Amino acid sequence: MTQTPNRPVTPVLDRVKIPADMKRLSDAELRRLADELRAETISAVSETGGHLGAGLGVVEMTVALHAVFDTPRDRVIWDVSHQSYPHKILTGRRDRIRTLRQKDGLSGFTKRSESPYDPFGAAHSSTSISAALGLSVARDLGGRGLEGESVGDCIAVIGDGAMSAGMAYEAMNNAGHLGKRLIVILNDNEMSIAPPVGAMSSYLSRLYAGAPFQEFKALAKGAVSFLPPPFQEGAKRAKDVFKHMTIGGTLFEELGFSYIGPIDGHDMEQMLSVLRTVKARADGPVLIHAITRKGKGYGPAEEASDKGHATAKFDVVSGKQSKAKSNAPSYTSVFSESLIKAAEKDDKIVAVTAAMPDGTGLARFMDRYASRCFDVGIAEQHAVTFAAGLAAGGMKPFCAIYSTFLQRGYDQVVHDVAIQRLPVRFAIDRAGLVGADGATHAGSFDVGFMANLPGMVVMAAADEAELARMVVTAAAHDEGPIAFRFPRGEGVGVEIPPEAQPLEIGKGRIVQEGSRVALLSFGTRLSEAVKAAEALSARGITPTIADARFAKPLDREMILKLAADHEALITLEEGAVGGFGSHVAQLLSDEGVFDHGLKFRSMVLPDIFIDQASPADMYETARLSARHIEEKVLSVLGVEVMGKRA
Amino acid sequence: MTQTPNRPVTPVLDRVKIPADMKRLSDAELRRLADELRAETISAVSETGGHLGAGLGVVEMTVALHAVFDTPRDRVIWDVSHQSYPHKILTGRRDRIRTLRQKDGLSGFTKRSESPYDPFGAAHSSTSISAALGLSVARDLGGRGLEGESVGDCIAVIGDGAMSAGMAYEAMNNAGHLGKRLIVILNDNEMSIAPPVGAMSSYLSRLYAGAPFQEFKALAKGAVSFLPPPFQEGAKRAKDVFKHMTIGGTLFEELGFSYIGPIDGHDMEQMLSVLRTVKARADGPVLIHAITRKGKGYGPAEEASDKGHATAKFDVVSGKQSKAKSNAPSYTSVFSESLIKAAEKDDKIVAVTAAMPDGTGLARFMDRYASRCFDVGIAEQHAVTFAAGLAAGGMKPFCAIYSTFLQRGYDQVVHDVAIQRLPVRFAIDRAGLVGADGATHAGSFDVGFMANLPGMVVMAAADEAELARMVVTAAAHDEGPIAFRFPRGEGVGVEIPPEAQPLEIGKGRIVQEGSRVALLSFGTRLSEAVKAAEALSARGITPTIADARFAKPLDREMILKLAADHEALITLEEGAVGGFGSHVAQLLSDEGVFDHGLKFRSMVLPDIFIDQASPADMYETARLSARHIEEKVLSVLGVEVMGKRA
Repeated sequence: MTQTPNRPVTPVLDRVKIPADMKRLSDAELRRLADELRAETISAVSETGGHLGAGLGVVEMTVALHAVFDTPRDRVIWDVSHQSYPHKILTGRRDRIRTLRQKDGLSGFTKRSESPYDPFGAAHSSTSISAALGLSVARDLGGRGLEGESVGDCIAVIGDGAMSAGMAYEAMNNAGHLGKRLIVILNDNEMSIAPPVGAMSSYLSRLYAGAPFQEFKALAKGAVSFLPPPFQEGAKRAKDVFKHMTIGGTLFEELGFSYIGPIDGHDMEQMLSVLRTVKARADGPVLIHAITRKGKGYGPAEEASDKGHATAKFDVVSGKQSKAKSNAPSYTSVFSESLIKAAEKDDKIVAVTAAMPDGTGLARFMDRYASRCFDVGIAEQHAVTFAAGLAAGGMKPFCAIYSTFLQRGYDQVVHDVAIQRLPVRFAIDRAGLVGADGATHAGSFDVGFMANLPGMVVMAAADEAELARMVVTAAAHDEGPIAFRFPRGEGVGVEIPPEAQPLEIGKGRIVQEGSRVALLSFGTRLSEAVKAAEALSARGITPTIADARFAKPLDREMILKLAADHEALITLEEGAVGGFGSHVAQLLSDEGVFDHGLKFRSMVLPDIFIDQASPADMYETARLSARHIEEKVLSVLGVEVMGKRA
Repeated sequence: MTQTPNRPVTPVLDRVKIPADMKRLSDAELRRLADELRAETISAVSETGGHLGAGLGVVEMTVALHAVFDTPRDRVIWDVSHQSYPHKILTGRRDRIRTLRQKDGLSGFTKRSESPYDPFGAAHSSTSISAALGLSVARDLGGRGLEGESVGDCIAVIGDGAMSAGMAYEAMNNAGHLGKRLIVILNDNEMSIAPPVGAMSSYLSRLYAGAPFQEFKALAKGAVSFLPPPFQEGAKRAKDVFKHMTIGGTLFEELGFSYIGPIDGHDMEQMLSVLRTVKARADGPVLIHAITRKGKGYGPAEEASDKGHATAKFDVVSGKQSKAKSNAPSYTSVFSESLIKAAEKDDKIVAVTAAMPDGTGLARFMDRYASRCFDVGIAEQHAVTFAAGLAAGGMKPFCAIYSTFLQRGYDQVVHDVAIQRLPVRFAIDRAGLVGADGATHAGSFDVGFMANLPGMVVMAAADEAELARMVVTAAAHDEGPIAFRFPRGEGVGVEIPPEAQPLEIGKGRIVQEGSRVALLSFGTRLSEAVKAAEALSARGITPTIADARFAKPLDREMILKLAADHEALITLEEGAVGGFGSHVAQLLSDEGVFDHGLKFRSMVLPDIFIDQASPADMYETARLSARHIEEKVLSVLGVEVMGKRA
């Protein structure tokens, strides 16, 4: 790679195209490689924006892993994988690293289709141990990768925040039982997205407090010499080996892991030494507890409250981010402020988040009502049932979870909330396509999986004023569960009423009266429908536009009237088939509306996972923008020129 | 209650209509009450069938809990709650206990709508700690129950098997962090449904082995006297108190719980003493580790391999069950045998179950191929991603999970399997309505939540021969994920081909050629469609009958031809709206088929949770039996008498 102005000087990194190139480097050169990799990561993210702090925290770990292990035969699985930018730079993707999170660029996460060095993609947390265990078991059964390549060591790198998820525990419980060789690196930066919560977090802190690095450092240095020889027999070996290296870690040992640590994840010598020892001697599941600093080595990130978790483009010297100013408040902040306002009047309102106080806007609620706001950790299953328990105890819980993460608590929504008709309020943020985070974070399925539950009320906000009304609607709804969804990003700029009034359950609204075709929108495609209608008026077509507000219960009266009064009815939603449009189709078919003909179309997300791009680009790909609505209207009305149906 | 012939003599129990009546009983009478309660439970289940072993294991615990605590103000939450029959007998439901699991009778699980003594219903495992924590927090915030009643102590009773689920860990992690007064009784019978697996289970065994009861018994007896006085200050108190009572339990203590145990869950004196102490002194989360025996006190249950987990009606003296002989094999066994057959030919086939080796039929696979079958514990999230890891490592994993439990692993299906297009095979048993287990176990939503995933193949077996073909179809499908669903119970009696041939992906079949109306079935409603057609032939109507086989990808060609050739098209499925019929509607509307009229109807599960009954009764309630299909055809064809549509 040639030197570009304003880019760091990276003589060692320039010699590393793929990890195999690192085998020629001395330990001292690996140390320098780490420094250059850190500079390159900062430089790249300053141009692209993205997750910065997490990657900076694992620079030394990344170098050490690729230096010691034989990737891609050995499989390094990054949990969540927003910390994988340094890994991408080292694994043949440096030339594309400045396309991160952009359309047609590199994903912000690991991705199997992107590189053989990404053996298992991620984006949601706490999956890595399960995946690494599956790969380890496959290896021991003679399995080869899908492209026929053999499988070596499997290493999961998982953060302390991700350890609060039950899935990680389930995997450790199973791994400890199976006893297969498996390496888990607990990347403990005491900082998931928000400051960590939960008893496990306190436990890890105690381990750390109990073992000063200096003491362990001496131990680790000496470790190789006093370890028993590798020919010592069977399963007992690893345990005996690591006993010498362990200070604490009983909890992991009780779960069947050998525990090593805590070690300094930024001390290259220590990282290399421990990984080499583990590689040479591990004979069962091993957990290496490495202490790191999120944002390490970049002052502005280290000093930020979120340690540079996710950032816009920024100036490398000052750290100043160049965030675009927006005119309208974000949906998230409208939710948050509406909830605070409702909570002022009703002390039974409480809020639950699963490790996303900032992302969900509940941080502000927490500032105001600390005793009424609960961050349960990355633990969506528990979050939902905990909220159900709160509801059973007479509180009015708002359970704020992104659409994509609510998939983690789906059974709890069904079994603990819906079947019992408990009045839990689900605030479903990031509904629809989300942009740079790509397919893994898209909120595509919630309308379908919520609206098919008996007794559930499902709303979608068409704009920020509607969202404010849905918050008070939910607060007032004590008869059973209720959900409202809203997208990522800014509102459309409408005025938010200072005293939002609750909606009548199951009632939509007509936004514009027209003829021939009715556009029935559920959620924020409403503004695209309005744009489409403006374009259509030039052709003499004035669609009726309706905002359904409810996918469940449907506004039967309004929908049947729209069907009766129009030649064509087109539903719009930011969700997959099986959701709003399907419920409308069910109503129309049940009522016999199709018997004599209705030009019915349901515009939904297409049957593909859409890669990262701007949300607008993603809706283009999805064919759900104003011009697609316009085209749909024209094709429906135009292909067969007919008057009003009989 | 008067004495009935062949019923046990229960003088003490007869005096207890509700738990308040127990306050007058001496400890010795409570001991006798437990014995009588056990006899009554055995007698009742011998008449009704149901879960026997679990209830017998908690008879003393049930008596002790209601004797010491003030239910229903204090909330006892039974995890899973199949062990709640003795609890139901003691809480005003003795007069209906012989209607257990029957239509219009008592639920086999706790149920909020059934009794104020059931503060939080269950049926799926591992939800109790989350619910109890939510109720505890509500209590401390001044919340009252939904009927306005105040909330006292919250006690979760959870089995050791349920402890393998991540959700239980998430809840403990949160409870340890919050530090609220909360009581968890770990009912350790070393036996969930199957023998327990996982490192947690081994850990519990070690705790047990390390602490003989006699030793603890002495400790417990003395406990009350040497405990510090209750006025000792604040949060430290509970910890100090229980330190004296603890032998082991570090893992729970690291998670912030005070650990007490292990104690003998059948020793009434010990149970009463420990519960009284905890009630008087607990000041934070407490875990009581009670050792019990599943099936305790009833020889035939104690001796059974599953400890009398679920039983048909039986003779009390001999324990002999009166199971009806069936003519056809169960779908589960057809799946199991087909998989074994496929595995004989392909050593890459492996199987994964989440603690249901018997229920899923994988026990037989495990007998044959122990190293290729993985019981990961009650851990559906992990099960799915573990299977994804196996697939990434070149194996062909069959992940066998009941429809209702797959809801627990939904995000993993989306994020780890579908987005990565990994060839995991999902065997979805208990799809549709399941009978005595009722609404909580119904497999109603899987078609919707699986078929909306890009790249997923979704099949449903119409009969047992079709299921055999779907197993080989799945085995041969390496291009991406594939799922096949099949119901609880016996097949229809068709011959199963010795060498089942794979199906062509996305191709349905015409079962019967007819005219005017086409019945398009997805799954086992096919036999009902055939019956309906027989009845209709008497009226001169011969429907075309088609078996869709695939909800995804749809057989577009066949479906469009059915629509073109018939006046009416009716889809049938054992699932909620949003599934097969919705995908068909989407196809038909996209293709403009409705523009000129088609009598389209989609027969799906109704928008209610259906209580326990026989499956046939439940399908009657759901209006999905042959006669409802017949009625639907008549109403669709008859209301508007028309010839073929233009």
